Amino acid sequence: MKSFVNYPENSDFSIHNIPFGVAVFNKEYIACATRIGDVVIDLATLYDFGFLDDVEGLNDNVFEAYTLNEFIELGKPVTNAVRLKIQELLLEGSSLSNDEKTIEECFFQIDEVKMLMPVHVPNYTDFYSSIEHATNVGKMFRDPANALLPNWKHLPVGYHGRASSIVVSGTDMHRPKGQTKPADADQPVFGPSKQLDFELEMAFIVNRNTEMGESISTAQAEDSIFGMVLFNDWSARDIQSWEYVPLGPFLAKNFGSSVSPWIITLEALEPFRTASPKQEPEVLDYLKFSGDKNYDINLEVSIAPEQGTETVICRSNYKFMYWNMCQQLAHHTVNGCNVEVGDMYASGTISGEEKDSFGSMLELTWRGQNPLKLSDGSERKFIDDNDTVIMRGFAEKDGVRVGFGEVSGKILPAK
Amino acid sequence: MKSFVNYPENSDFSIHNIPFGVAVFNKEYIACATRIGDVVIDLATLYDFGFLDDVEGLNDNVFEAYTLNEFIELGKPVTNAVRLKIQELLLEGSSLSNDEKTIEECFFQIDEVKMLMPVHVPNYTDFYSSIEHATNVGKMFRDPANALLPNWKHLPVGYHGRASSIVVSGTDMHRPKGQTKPADADQPVFGPSKQLDFELEMAFIVNRNTEMGESISTAQAEDSIFGMVLFNDWSARDIQSWEYVPLGPFLAKNFGSSVSPWIITLEALEPFRTASPKQEPEVLDYLKFSGDKNYDINLEVSIAPEQGTETVICRSNYKFMYWNMCQQLAHHTVNGCNVEVGDMYASGTISGEEKDSFGSMLELTWRGQNPLKLSDGSERKFIDDNDTVIMRGFAEKDGVRVGFGEVSGKILPAK
Repeated sequence: MKSFVNYPENSDFSIHNIPFGVAVFNKEYIACATRIGDVVIDLATLYDFGFLDDVEGLNDNVFEAYTLNEFIELGKPVTNAVRLKIQELLLEGSSLSNDEKTIEECFFQIDEVKMLMPVHVPNYTDFYSSIEHATNVGKMFRDPANALLPNWKHLPVGYHGRASSIVVSGTDMHRPKGQTKPADADQPVFGPSKQLDFELEMAFIVNRNTEMGESISTAQAEDSIFGMVLFNDWSARDIQSWEYVPLGPFLAKNFGSSVSPWIITLEALEPFRTASPKQEPEVLDYLKFSGDKNYDINLEVSIAPEQGTETVICRSNYKFMYWNMCQQLAHHTVNGCNVEVGDMYASGTISGEEKDSFGSMLELTWRGQNPLKLSDGSERKFIDDNDTVIMRGFAEKDGVRVGFGEVSGKILPAK
Repeated sequence: MKSFVNYPENSDFSIHNIPFGVAVFNKEYIACATRIGDVVIDLATLYDFGFLDDVEGLNDNVFEAYTLNEFIELGKPVTNAVRLKIQELLLEGSSLSNDEKTIEECFFQIDEVKMLMPVHVPNYTDFYSSIEHATNVGKMFRDPANALLPNWKHLPVGYHGRASSIVVSGTDMHRPKGQTKPADADQPVFGPSKQLDFELEMAFIVNRNTEMGESISTAQAEDSIFGMVLFNDWSARDIQSWEYVPLGPFLAKNFGSSVSPWIITLEALEPFRTASPKQEPEVLDYLKFSGDKNYDINLEVSIAPEQGTETVICRSNYKFMYWNMCQQLAHHTVNGCNVEVGDMYASGTISGEEKDSFGSMLELTWRGQNPLKLSDGSERKFIDDNDTVIMRGFAEKDGVRVGFGEVSGKILPAK
């Protein structure tokens, strides 16, 4: 497949991708968008010009919106047809390729637009589905000999997070203040977190509303998942270790989470399916699945100090996940918990077996014991003020590349 | 104060109350409403008829809505003025009292309307703020000698709950199925919960949106709280005890929570302010407060078996809360976590010192060891299929009564 839009060979946004997002065009007009190479396409105007007229089930201009929720809710038959139609329009020789007026109205260079949150997120859940991450944390905070808790291999452990503070890539945030209890203190103290961390995660977005009491089986799950984003689950470790018993993480996490602006559809990720790690012991029936339910997605994390260059500090892969998305969604709804369009379900930190594949500073520096060296010579135990953390992800196979771009966020000093 | 609407002396919805809710009138028309005695008043039509014209800041018919969010967001100066205006209109001799046409159009008997969820809930948090409850749970599940965890007296422990499954009183729900690990089993099993419980709670509702990075101090908190409801935090204890380490309750809670339909404003509760239990050790500065921040609200829980009469099984009081709402909101936002209009913040189970004041079956039966006897002679360790659980709450002082009505929910057999 060759597009009439030129882009470099290593672009995440190839003709095979066709992601969906929401953009501010000309600093004032907001609409749903797609992207190829470094060109962002205004889908609302493209719809108005009639280019999507023959997509069955697309009866309104759902792209004239501040979020993708209305589009996503149309469901797979429609959203897939829209994606394939856009792909067709972007090929050499298409009806669009010679239509200069439409191209002038709908095509923008990436630096002419500002990306917004792609969806309104009614509910956000964070899983804990990497066995390497759970093992590392268990070793550090609990018992090295019994790092995994007894339930871990029987169910995808998860908890509810804060939906209000999920922000799009590029949103800076202040270092959180909070209550911590230093190891050498009798009483807790209050102040800016001294152990601010990232967590390398991915999240999937649901495309339907279910009724309370309804469950989604592992076999039904993929039809209910629109696509995925990169997810940085910022974490204040010192706040977390004091507050989290017995009800889980709270203020250590809810000051902010960052997501990449482009949702990559499951269909774009189809060529990169791969097997999951073997699950032993066998899981209960409602968690069984057939086929390859994992995806081979390369992930990396960089730190960029202010006025410094980036240093890559972690290379991981989504395929390491022990529990897959179908199992996560089946587990979440097996009790009848209802889901809503736009819900975000994050993976938990994605660590691999190798030390440089650990998906958090907590693990990379082993709780600060082994600081990382950045390319400017400075050292990091955790994230410093004015550091920018950048996560990137892409899949590549047989010359086909589909990527997520990046999610970045800068930590400003505490207010 | 005497209203021209007659109601029994023990009505929760006296002229001193003036609560807010959302109702379906004539089985088809939805609007915001208030209530006096057993009369529900359609506020959208009352607005259209001009009776609220002189309330400053009320420039649109925000009552013509499916939720109270738009009204609540107007903030205290406007919502208080509306409440006082309605109270004035309901007094004997008011302009409304002799306007038969308006009364005919706007006044409905309670059994002619169906109540809906009063607000859209963007985010839901559950605290754990009763010292008696936390102590009871700690004794049962952890260490009787050290029942309270080290952080408990230093911060109001809380966690994020599921907003999508909060439903209004009268919504039946199915017993959840899930994964549990019986004490005598090697492996977990799957099936309907055998330890379904209620939790007697109250929740407050926030009236503003804050920016990320902004905090609400204990002194500012009351201005940000519109009012309160009764809250039943249904809990499947067997699912909970297997899943909750290390990230907190998840499927044990998110299958459903029930709220009472009428939001009682903080202003209506003003006469019932009372002191909180003494906090020892002293809390950190950001959690300090001055004045009486607690409320004397009588609470009770009944079980009604199918075709049986109700048995009151618990009598408690909101004033037992160790952590108050101002501290909860200050803590929740001290790290910059943003709040949204309609957010619900639940108290956690409200237990007192006496055994019959415990706010859950878990505590009342001490994990099933001491079953409760109902008036029909049957026994309960937990909640049976087809049982209805009813919670009621009211404040009363110097002949003034302000109540919440009830939140009830029936448990249907597992699907």
